Amino acid sequence: MSKKERTAIQPTREENYAEWYQQVIKAADLAENSDVRGCMVIKPWGYAIWENIQHSLDEMFRETGHRNAYFPIFIPKSFFEKEAEHVEGFAKECAVVTHSRLEHDERGGLKAAGELTEPYIVRPTSETIIGSSFAKWVNSYRDLPLKINQWANIVRWEMRTRLFLRTTEFLWQEGHTVHETREEAMEETLTMLDVYAHFAHEYLAIPVIKGEKTEGEKFPGAVNTYCIEAMMQDKKALQSGTSHFLGQNFAKASNIRFQNREGEFDFAWTTSWGVSTRLIGALIMAHSDDNGLVLPPRIAPAHVAIIPIYRSEEEKAAVMGLAKQIEESLKHQHFDGIRIYTELDDRELTSSERNWYWIKKGIPLRIEIGPRDVASQSVMLARRDQEPRDKQSVPVADLIATILKVLPEIQTNLYEKALRFRDENIVKIDSREEFYAFFTPQNAAQPEIHGGFASSHWCGNEACEEKIKDDLKVTIRCIPFDAKAEEGACICCGKASTRRVFFAKSY
Amino acid sequence: MSKKERTAIQPTREENYAEWYQQVIKAADLAENSDVRGCMVIKPWGYAIWENIQHSLDEMFRETGHRNAYFPIFIPKSFFEKEAEHVEGFAKECAVVTHSRLEHDERGGLKAAGELTEPYIVRPTSETIIGSSFAKWVNSYRDLPLKINQWANIVRWEMRTRLFLRTTEFLWQEGHTVHETREEAMEETLTMLDVYAHFAHEYLAIPVIKGEKTEGEKFPGAVNTYCIEAMMQDKKALQSGTSHFLGQNFAKASNIRFQNREGEFDFAWTTSWGVSTRLIGALIMAHSDDNGLVLPPRIAPAHVAIIPIYRSEEEKAAVMGLAKQIEESLKHQHFDGIRIYTELDDRELTSSERNWYWIKKGIPLRIEIGPRDVASQSVMLARRDQEPRDKQSVPVADLIATILKVLPEIQTNLYEKALRFRDENIVKIDSREEFYAFFTPQNAAQPEIHGGFASSHWCGNEACEEKIKDDLKVTIRCIPFDAKAEEGACICCGKASTRRVFFAKSY
Repeated sequence: MSKKERTAIQPTREENYAEWYQQVIKAADLAENSDVRGCMVIKPWGYAIWENIQHSLDEMFRETGHRNAYFPIFIPKSFFEKEAEHVEGFAKECAVVTHSRLEHDERGGLKAAGELTEPYIVRPTSETIIGSSFAKWVNSYRDLPLKINQWANIVRWEMRTRLFLRTTEFLWQEGHTVHETREEAMEETLTMLDVYAHFAHEYLAIPVIKGEKTEGEKFPGAVNTYCIEAMMQDKKALQSGTSHFLGQNFAKASNIRFQNREGEFDFAWTTSWGVSTRLIGALIMAHSDDNGLVLPPRIAPAHVAIIPIYRSEEEKAAVMGLAKQIEESLKHQHFDGIRIYTELDDRELTSSERNWYWIKKGIPLRIEIGPRDVASQSVMLARRDQEPRDKQSVPVADLIATILKVLPEIQTNLYEKALRFRDENIVKIDSREEFYAFFTPQNAAQPEIHGGFASSHWCGNEACEEKIKDDLKVTIRCIPFDAKAEEGACICCGKASTRRVFFAKSY
Repeated sequence: MSKKERTAIQPTREENYAEWYQQVIKAADLAENSDVRGCMVIKPWGYAIWENIQHSLDEMFRETGHRNAYFPIFIPKSFFEKEAEHVEGFAKECAVVTHSRLEHDERGGLKAAGELTEPYIVRPTSETIIGSSFAKWVNSYRDLPLKINQWANIVRWEMRTRLFLRTTEFLWQEGHTVHETREEAMEETLTMLDVYAHFAHEYLAIPVIKGEKTEGEKFPGAVNTYCIEAMMQDKKALQSGTSHFLGQNFAKASNIRFQNREGEFDFAWTTSWGVSTRLIGALIMAHSDDNGLVLPPRIAPAHVAIIPIYRSEEEKAAVMGLAKQIEESLKHQHFDGIRIYTELDDRELTSSERNWYWIKKGIPLRIEIGPRDVASQSVMLARRDQEPRDKQSVPVADLIATILKVLPEIQTNLYEKALRFRDENIVKIDSREEFYAFFTPQNAAQPEIHGGFASSHWCGNEACEEKIKDDLKVTIRCIPFDAKAEEGACICCGKASTRRVFFAKSY
């Protein structure tokens, strides 16, 4: 195999998907494991993607009437214990603060001292601590709805971690709202799920399925959990966002009561919803290829890499002149309301090295400028959604217009490609044998790779759900909102079922 | 005393400054104490101020070549111990994570379980954990400079807390940079101090004094600490930002070595610098008055409150029509590059109640619109930097132009007022008796209120610094950059001194 035919990422997706994922992250310099168990370091290019996610979502939250606030990172153990299901769900994986200082020990080292009378939990989610504030803020129906969002770091003591997908510490946003009625709270829960789905489609270029979680899969303490589920390139599902209707469970636990319009005191209805740095994992696995990261333009930290190529000082003057002129002319350009950022890469590396550097980082467009281009007043334009060697010559006079046209095109292409891939890998399955075969690895070297999403009947019984999970490590990803009423037989026990659900392996 | 003459904030600054501060925060709904010891809840209006601080600073950091990243919240105890002075400085006030889960105890409650082999410290600052990443990232002089910033939450176990000024958890940014030479690192340290001073002047409208901390007051582990110091209305100093030249101390502790231009391995030179939610405390105390918060327009979450006044439905239609027209016409307006945000307050409250609500929240401008104003096509405009009852009639046709002119005027006025106040309260003192009198409370009821900043000679001896601290609770705030060489006698011991320093009580 010649060097040129080697892909930039080794191994390829085909060869070893899990390792390919790690290598894409490394090649794009997005993040790395830290010296702290299960915690990651998010490097500048990865963090800039998170900032873009924050920026876009934050605007949508504001437009839907939410305000940002900040609550304590610590949750007293007694608060945490207030909601029984909730504490059971998180107790096994939480960081516990027990001491408030370090003291010299006998051997000259330091030991924990100043033991707390009540341990604190580093927040694994904030329903209980935010609830204690809400209980003070809410007195009358006039104080409702109360719609708050928090951007924060979260700690869940995960045993098996993977960059972005599952880490002990991660970054997220958590919305917490309080309402007068069940209906209003339910409407809020579903509105925010729509916001997430819209964001995934329009910004991340990831098609998602909206649906409801089963009893067994819902958030500890929630009445209903709704989710958006995306398909990755290994055909596994990735839960990309959840929105919880909490009923009056947490209002009762935190004593969030209000005087209603009849003058009586009643418990409020609450919701919570969140997405996290996990979305960056989804982004990587939805679009990247064997040459590295592929970024949808609307979420990319930078959009255009300009690569000047010259040998002599004379060539340099001419080439850099044009390069800077193009950089300058792009400075105040926007596409789809998003400002275009440019990287002029004048490092002392070959043009091939610089091209590959930006290909691996997923920048949507590359512009090469050499002495001949200066003479002809044209440049070579390459798109990340096409082959590395595919380049088109564009007259400098048309460049801005071309870029403004191509960036939204790339965005659309990536979405459509991901949609095609997903739809090709959703299969209606009605026989148990076929179902088991579908989820049996097709390649012994990559036991993770299997059939895709199965759209199959389920009787609604938790025992069937459990059996399939035990046998195949396959779970019900969701009961889709758009499931049609349809008579059928449960894929597991054969009993009557009225609609299909989505089964898949998942992250 | 008639109700009208009462100020909106009780007590006044004159009556009880410390309590006035708490009441301003409460009346503006900026933050509150939480149920977690020493931790605050930052409420939406307060958090929006922090977001504006972040936004403005972030742009300045980017323009000076820094990139944001994110590092783990936990610091293994062994990392923390690597720099001896550093650990001594923070050991007495740190949250220690010792367990990784909760387990049911005999009485049905929960107890900490899964003891860690090595305790983790919740970051009180991140030099050591970021240093461990930098050690991997830096190999050659070609990797330098490395200029990183992190926005994060920080925990220091404070015994006596006060909202924004001193809390167990707070929000901040911490810049961490690595350089090839001492000179470059020193230049970075001072550049970032300039950025902070510029930000304080231009956005917070707070004049600050730039200078260097004494040995006794510097950051644990730093070679030099530089600071900006501001004067609050009780004439105490508030350290508003610090920038540390760390020399090779942390590079040695974290083993940040690089191959220099001569091909030899050498330890790098590092810096760190930070500002925190403490700046909101500075903002409150620099400008607010006995009617509540006063916000400089460039940092205010909203700039104009529109207060429609009507009785009948007919009046309502006309008044709300004009109110919405004005709201709409302000929507895309900017002053000094800052977008103008408007709050149309149509709540069922009297116009007086709504006016006072926004006065207490510190909104720079209020517009009242009644039926007569609709008829005359003019509105009443009130400025937060003038008396509540001072209003001017402005024709609707001139309103935008007036607002665009007045907002920068308010910004300038606030700065100049704070500057005058500070300069009036900086006193050159050369006699020890006068010095002691200056720092002796003038009002027994308010022992905190004293003379101001003393510009006095100091011999450079730590013993004198300590004695003054013990006697008066007064510290050397800084050795100002613009101190002139001047012969004098130490205010404490009388020995020869070559320049004045600033002494003050401080937060």
